[in-house]
Amino acid sequence: MKVLFLSADEFEDLELIYPLHRLREEGHEVYVASFKRGKITGKHGYSVEAQLAFEEVDPDEFDALILPGGKAPERVRLNEKAVAVTKKMFEDGKPVASICHGPQILISAGVLKGRKGTSVITIRDDVKNAGGEWVDAEVVVDGNWVSSRHPGDLYAWMREFVKLLK
Amino acid sequence: MKVLFLSADEFEDLELIYPLHRLREEGHEVYVASFKRGKITGKHGYSVEAQLAFEEVDPDEFDALILPGGKAPERVRLNEKAVAVTKKMFEDGKPVASICHGPQILISAGVLKGRKGTSVITIRDDVKNAGGEWVDAEVVVDGNWVSSRHPGDLYAWMREFVKLLK
Repeated sequence: MKVLFLSADEFEDLELIYPLHRLREEGHEVYVASFKRGKITGKHGYSVEAQLAFEEVDPDEFDALILPGGKAPERVRLNEKAVAVTKKMFEDGKPVASICHGPQILISAGVLKGRKGTSVITIRDDVKNAGGEWVDAEVVVDGNWVSSRHPGDLYAWMREFVKLLK
Repeated sequence: MKVLFLSADEFEDLELIYPLHRLREEGHEVYVASFKRGKITGKHGYSVEAQLAFEEVDPDEFDALILPGGKAPERVRLNEKAVAVTKKMFEDGKPVASICHGPQILISAGVLKGRKGTSVITIRDDVKNAGGEWVDAEVVVDGNWVSSRHPGDLYAWMREFVKLLK
């Protein structure tokens, strides 16, 4: 499967790099998209290569979407194309994994009404105001959406997402 | 299975935290041992809890061993108990995973003679002088020993180690 990551500088390093390796381990192809092609750098100083600019992304070419956290989602949600890609993939029922601040992009895409999930607790009220049901759990699986709270949940987050991709 | 990690401050963050979550994902119990119980902090600022001091470790209680890299192995190899635990578990044929500078502990344990593996390239000559055959590959599986070079190999390292634990 082709899995798309949407992120930007100041991503939460583990929340991007853990699933990147975990999904490669499963034999999936992983692609990172950001504002432009090239290196993006996490809060803890790790860098990864964005192979695609948001503008180049065709959501129909990808089978699943990952929205890591950190400070990146507040930037990504301002990009109309990134938000449109998220909306299309989510509404098409493709598997979407978010963690920490990742749901900020889902809120801007307007897809959380009636959906159940989790996030970092600091954006709990924003998830609720977007019509979502917020749960305090290490991982929540609601149909195509798998969400976790923070890096301490990585093992549970990817356990459920890898299962969903099968 | 009970999996033991030996590390210390200035560990390479991804090389410790990735396998920690990956093995929890598989349902294994993970334990970190260091000079003393309590928080150890990686080069990139992430912290993990060491539940055990080296002196408390009984190697017979654990089924597998992980030696992450960073600057930690140069510290760990100076602790006689940590080296003795490594030697016992390696020679008992239990699965051992090392990455990056992790093999410095295996060198001090004197277990690499005639064994094939990899490490960060900068300690290649030390692995050879310890009697090992050094290979430049993302992952090398030689019996109970699974080794990789750096964080870019994490997906391959854990793919093979998880397989070995089954």
